[in-house]
Amino acid sequence: MKQLILGGARSGKSRLAEQRAQNFGCRVVYIATAQAGDGEMSDRILRHREQRPAEWGLVEEPIALAQVLHEHAADDVCLLVDCLTLWVTNILLADPGVLERELNALYQVLDNLPGELIFVSNEVGWGIVPMGELSRQFQDQAGWLHQRLGEICDRVTLTVAGIPLEIKQPL
Amino acid sequence: MKQLILGGARSGKSRLAEQRAQNFGCRVVYIATAQAGDGEMSDRILRHREQRPAEWGLVEEPIALAQVLHEHAADDVCLLVDCLTLWVTNILLADPGVLERELNALYQVLDNLPGELIFVSNEVGWGIVPMGELSRQFQDQAGWLHQRLGEICDRVTLTVAGIPLEIKQPL
Amino acid sequence: MKQLILGGARSGKSRLAEQRAQNFGCRVVYIATAQAGDGEMSDRILRHREQRPAEWGLVEEPIALAQVLHEHAADDVCLLVDCLTLWVTNILLADPGVLERELNALYQVLDNLPGELIFVSNEVGWGIVPMGELSRQFQDQAGWLHQRLGEICDRVTLTVAGIPLEIKQPL
Repeated sequence: MKQLILGGARSGKSRLAEQRAQNFGCRVVYIATAQAGDGEMSDRILRHREQRPAEWGLVEEPIALAQVLHEHAADDVCLLVDCLTLWVTNILLADPGVLERELNALYQVLDNLPGELIFVSNEVGWGIVPMGELSRQFQDQAGWLHQRLGEICDRVTLTVAGIPLEIKQPL
Repeated sequence: MKQLILGGARSGKSRLAEQRAQNFGCRVVYIATAQAGDGEMSDRILRHREQRPAEWGLVEEPIALAQVLHEHAADDVCLLVDCLTLWVTNILLADPGVLERELNALYQVLDNLPGELIFVSNEVGWGIVPMGELSRQFQDQAGWLHQRLGEICDRVTLTVAGIPLEIKQPL
Repeated sequence: MKQLILGGARSGKSRLAEQRAQNFGCRVVYIATAQAGDGEMSDRILRHREQRPAEWGLVEEPIALAQVLHEHAADDVCLLVDCLTLWVTNILLADPGVLERELNALYQVLDNLPGELIFVSNEVGWGIVPMGELSRQFQDQAGWLHQRLGEICDRVTLTVAGIPLEIKQPL
C-alpha cells in the first residue's frame, strides 16, 4: 500500500508516519531527503534520528529518490520517505533537467513497487503566495506532486495539531 | 445551487470546479478574474484555457463580478468564477470605495441568482501572517469573503492534494 | 471539557469560540493575550471586544497564561483564551527562559483544571516556511504547542470559511 501523509510545519506528520511504519511489523527503511547544510538543519536531522528505532535502515538521498525506492523496495519492507518537500527543493535547485527527470522516474517506479510505502510531505500552499520566483516554483511543483500522489496513493492523511484527518481512505 | 471550492496553491481546485461544471450538463460560462499582467500570469491563463472545453462561454472581468453574474445567470446555466482571490486583489488595488461597493454588489446579487454557481478561491490564511500592510489587508478581506460565502453557499469543499474534502454539504 | 479551535486568519475561529462559550450557559471569562502595540492591533482588539457580551469577565494577560487560568478556573466558569499564537509570540520575544517556564506552567495547570476551557489559535504552519529565524522559531513553537494541546484537549475543531470541521470529537 502507498500512502501520503501531509501536514503543516510541526503538525506531527513525521511522528504519525513513524508510528504507522512501526505498526506494519515489517523491516523499515527510512529514506531521508534532507541535506545537512547548516547547523539548524543538522540539529533537526539528528533530533529526528534519535527518535527512530535503532534497527531501522537509513538511506540518505537528496536527489535520486526513484532509484533508492527501486533498490530497497521488497514485499516485506516498509519504505518511509521523509520528506518530499525537501526533495522538491533539492531537485529544483539542481542542474536544469534534473527536476523533470527525477519526477518522471518517481512516477514510473511507483507504477510497480512491492511492499509498503509512506511519503511524508509539507503542505505549503495555504499561505500568501510568496513573492520570489523560486518560492513560487517550489509551491507549484510541490502542489502538482501532491495532486499526482493523491491519485496514486491508496491513503492520504492530513495531520492537524498532531491528529490525523483522513482525506482518502483505502478501499 | 451555489458552491465554494477552496484550496491551497496547485491543490486541484480549478480542476474539480471544471469537472463539477461539466457534470451539471448545462451551458457553462467561465468567468475569469485574472488580468494578464506579466508573462508568467499570461502563461497560466493560457494553460488553464486550453484545458477547458471549447464550447464553454468565457467572460474576462477583473472588477465588476456582480454585474457579470447578474447578466449571465440563468436557470440552465452554470457560472464558474475562477478565482475569487484574484478578484479580491483587483478590487483592493482599485480606487478607494471600489472594494466595499463590489463586495456589497456581490452579496446583493447572490441573494437571488438563478442556475448553478461555482466559486473557486485560494485558501491563503494558513501561513505566517505576512509583514506587509497590503498582504495583511488581502488576507483579511479574503478570509471575511470566504466566511460570508461559507454561509451563503449550499456546498463548501476544500481540496487537499487534489482530493475533495467536503466542509459543508447541501441539505 | 477542554477544546482547541484552530483556523487560518479570518476563518471565523473567534466567533465560533464565542458562540460555544455562550452556549455553555455558565459565566464566561475572556482571556485576551493581545498587547495593544500599534494602532492596527488596538483597532482589532476594540472590534473584537465590542462583539462580545458585556457581562463577560475580561482578563488581559500577554505572558502569565497559566497563572490566569489557575486563578479564574471554576466548575461554573468557561475560560476563553484568544489567542494562543499571540501568547507564543509574546513569550518568544520575552526574556530567555520565559518561553520554557510558561509552556511548562501551562501544561501543568491543564492537568487538573475545573470547568470549561476554550483555546483559540491560528494555524500558521501551512504556508511556505518563512525565511527569518524568529518566524521559524515561532512556527515551530506554535506547531508543537498545537500538537500537545491536540493530545490534551477533548475536542479539536478547525474552522474553514467560518465552518467548523471536527478534527477530534469528545468521547
